Amino acid sequence: MGLSTAFTRMFGVRHPIALAPMGGTAGGALAAAVSRGGGLGLVGVGGGDRELLDRELPLVAESGMPWGVGFQSWAASVRAVERALEFRPAAVMLSFGDPGPFVGRIREAEVALVIQVTGIEEARQAVDLGADVIVAQGTESGGHGARHGMSTLPFVPMVVDLAGPVPVLAAGGIGDGRGVAAALALGAAGALVGTRFQATAESLVDPESARLIEAGEGQDTERNRILDIARGSRWPAEYTARTLGHPYLDRWRGREADLTASPAAREAYQADVARGAVPPLPVWAGEAVGLVRGRPPAAELVEELAVRAEEALSRAGRG
Amino acid sequence: MGLSTAFTRMFGVRHPIALAPMGGTAGGALAAAVSRGGGLGLVGVGGGDRELLDRELPLVAESGMPWGVGFQSWAASVRAVERALEFRPAAVMLSFGDPGPFVGRIREAEVALVIQVTGIEEARQAVDLGADVIVAQGTESGGHGARHGMSTLPFVPMVVDLAGPVPVLAAGGIGDGRGVAAALALGAAGALVGTRFQATAESLVDPESARLIEAGEGQDTERNRILDIARGSRWPAEYTARTLGHPYLDRWRGREADLTASPAAREAYQADVARGAVPPLPVWAGEAVGLVRGRPPAAELVEELAVRAEEALSRAGRG
Repeated sequence: MGLSTAFTRMFGVRHPIALAPMGGTAGGALAAAVSRGGGLGLVGVGGGDRELLDRELPLVAESGMPWGVGFQSWAASVRAVERALEFRPAAVMLSFGDPGPFVGRIREAEVALVIQVTGIEEARQAVDLGADVIVAQGTESGGHGARHGMSTLPFVPMVVDLAGPVPVLAAGGIGDGRGVAAALALGAAGALVGTRFQATAESLVDPESARLIEAGEGQDTERNRILDIARGSRWPAEYTARTLGHPYLDRWRGREADLTASPAAREAYQADVARGAVPPLPVWAGEAVGLVRGRPPAAELVEELAVRAEEALSRAGRG
Repeated sequence: MGLSTAFTRMFGVRHPIALAPMGGTAGGALAAAVSRGGGLGLVGVGGGDRELLDRELPLVAESGMPWGVGFQSWAASVRAVERALEFRPAAVMLSFGDPGPFVGRIREAEVALVIQVTGIEEARQAVDLGADVIVAQGTESGGHGARHGMSTLPFVPMVVDLAGPVPVLAAGGIGDGRGVAAALALGAAGALVGTRFQATAESLVDPESARLIEAGEGQDTERNRILDIARGSRWPAEYTARTLGHPYLDRWRGREADLTASPAAREAYQADVARGAVPPLPVWAGEAVGLVRGRPPAAELVEELAVRAEEALSRAGRG
């Protein structure tokens, strides 16, 4: 009979599942595949580089299905958000940093405002800003997130209580239908899924990273700033990233301040990348990586997640 | 109509809810109240001090209801487990350390063997040892746990897949009925709840700690070894503890090695405790502390958790 929530009704989608707008993974093709499967595909555009927007957004905008675009607020510009709005998304998602500067333009365009939060205070701000959807991100999520956050299971009900009628999506640690079911049981209106969609046919991730994600176990990930510092990333210091193992993690674990103070170490990292001794980018992955098996077409995966979630809810407490 | 699982059938209890055997909190009176409410009360006895066993276990053993007792394996002795078995519990739970030395006696007594695990390898060992129930503990849990664990939401389904027919309880981050519902949706046969039961009428926790737990928010907790080192605890170094804030956390955050190397700092801690400048014990609390409101009788709380869990499952994906 399908799962129906405030989220599925808001966007007219069949399943309470959204694609996390992961930079470097969630391009227009993956977002279109997720939307085709009945979820809400969100293209990850980081700060909103014009060339990236003009290349990826048409791939999903021309599909005729609901879709969205996700920015990193700390890196985005109003101009980039305006450019994205020209492609007529159903939703703009803002994560990591002050969403304030972008809210007005998104409202004027009558596009759903989705704000991702990593703590209680951010959740309150999102409500005050009039978010149409709030994404509550737990610390088990892959890629960037809060240094001092909470895990998804306790965090989501706290945000649901704060959000009142505003639909909440759970993000972080959701790798299969059981995770989607748990999100709904917690009172969320759906799940935002990242890591699992990296290992799909349409993901932009390179084949070696996809292989590592398929092979990874949940305890193989860790969250810190080491690789951001080593590669000279502009990510603000309050955000850590969860990744699979990496030689620089073993070398610098627990010594972020030392690494920051060492230009030589950052140069060595560039040299190691140049000669192929370390991969060009970290392999971002959440703890749900241990649940990733196979590399299906994303539309099939969305249907599978929804079917399994419904089964899990039917079975729960009836065993 | 109630929630029925392999766990409720195994113990003949009404609700898929177990009391975490928290030392200093879960005495015989609290365990008895939880069992009276329809859950499985587990008395926390740490290493199994004889005086503690002989004082607390009769309080629940004489109730005629199913109950259990939980040991810390690193601190327990075979003699202590044997003494506990004389009170005829329905279950003995072993956490933190090698359960091997105790398994034979528990089996001979035909008592259910419950093993708590904090990682994939421990889960495999628990299956190999023939655990009757496996508790999968996530890092958001209060008190002691693994330094390198996983959050409950991704960890539980991984353990369920490994455990096959063995029932799994989810532990960590479960503070209300929605969390119990999520545990069941993840495929667990129930939830082991700790922090929430600290703020109950029968908890052994001191009134000031109970007040702090009622007032605490989820982001107020942190996990590390600082307070174990400062107070000279014998807890092995691979276990951290999640607690509410404390002056020694602010003073020593990120400097565990320095604290270990400083006898003067440990003496200062003792002096601060003696003159009342810091509390005699850390306030152990998980991230679910943000969901704790009020200090009800534990039996009422069990019923409330079960009713709300059932409601949450009925509502999930039908909103």
